[in-house]
Amino acid sequence: MKWEDLSEQQCSVARSSAVLGDRWSLLLLSDFFLGVRRFDDFQRRLGLSRTTLTNRLKLLEDHEVVKRAVYQHQPTRYEYRLTAKGRDLFPVISALLTWGDKYYFEGLTPPIIRQHQTCGHDIQPVLSCPVCHEAVDARSMRGRERPASAGLPPLERGPVKYPSN
Amino acid sequence: MKWEDLSEQQCSVARSSAVLGDRWSLLLLSDFFLGVRRFDDFQRRLGLSRTTLTNRLKLLEDHEVVKRAVYQHQPTRYEYRLTAKGRDLFPVISALLTWGDKYYFEGLTPPIIRQHQTCGHDIQPVLSCPVCHEAVDARSMRGRERPASAGLPPLERGPVKYPSN
Repeated sequence: MKWEDLSEQQCSVARSSAVLGDRWSLLLLSDFFLGVRRFDDFQRRLGLSRTTLTNRLKLLEDHEVVKRAVYQHQPTRYEYRLTAKGRDLFPVISALLTWGDKYYFEGLTPPIIRQHQTCGHDIQPVLSCPVCHEAVDARSMRGRERPASAGLPPLERGPVKYPSN
Repeated sequence: MKWEDLSEQQCSVARSSAVLGDRWSLLLLSDFFLGVRRFDDFQRRLGLSRTTLTNRLKLLEDHEVVKRAVYQHQPTRYEYRLTAKGRDLFPVISALLTWGDKYYFEGLTPPIIRQHQTCGHDIQPVLSCPVCHEAVDARSMRGRERPASAGLPPLERGPVKYPSN
C-alpha cells in the first residue's frame, strides 16, 4: 500500500493517520489547542523550517482541519484557526498528552496542566462509556468487523478481541 | 529541533510523537488492538516492506510499547505483544478511530464496531472529566504552563486558552 492510497482506505485509522501520522502535524495540533495561530509563532516554538511548516499547514488545510483567516489588512496577514473538524481532534491530542505525562513525567508536575472549565478542577480527561459511564480501556473493549450488508465492503478482519496480555 | 531530540523534550506530546508520529506506527498499533501479533500477519494486512515493518516494530520495542515473546520452539518463533505501556495507548487509537468514523464514514456503519464488554453496548468511547463526569472537549478545557517551582524548567508557553473559533 502506498501512502497516497491511505486516505482512500476503508479504515478510519488509516484515513486519520493520513492527516495525523506525522510528528510535526501532532506538534502543530498541540500548539493549536494551546491557542497558537500564527506562522511565525509556530516556527519559533517548533524550530522547523519554513518549507516544512508551510507543507504541514497546507496538509492540515487540505484536510479541512485548519483554515486561514485574515487578521490584518494593509498588508493582508493571515492566521490559522482550527475548524470544527480540527477541534474534534482534541481527544487525540489529549490522549497523547495523558500518555506522555504518565510515562515520561511520572511523579512530576506535567508540562501542561489541564483545567476543566465546567467544574474548575485540574484533570486528565478519561475515556468512558457513553451508555454506562464506566471508564473503558483496552481490556474492556472488543472490536468486530462491520457486517457486509452495511453498504461498504467488509475489511479483511475477523471478529477479534483486544489482547489481554 | 531535530527529530532525534524530540524524545528528550520537556513536552509530553513531543515525547509521545517520537513514538507515534508515524503512519505505520499508528496502523500497527491499531492492528495490535485488534489482536494481530505476528510479523507475517502485519505484513499481509498492511502491505508494507519487511524492512519497514522490522524498523517500526523495533521502534515500538525500543520504546517498550511492545515486547517479543516466544510462541513456538524448534524452530523458535516470536510474536509481538503489547506491554502495559502499549495498552495504555488505547485511548489514542480509539480517539483516532472515532474521529475517522465521524469524518470519513458519516451515516455509514463504521469499519470497526466497538463493544463495551462491561455493559454489552456498541459504543464510541467519549472523553469525560474524572471529577464531575461531564463530557469534555476543546472548548471546555484550558491548558496552562507548569509552575517553575515544580522542579523542571517551565516551557516557553504562557497561560493560554483553547481557541473557541
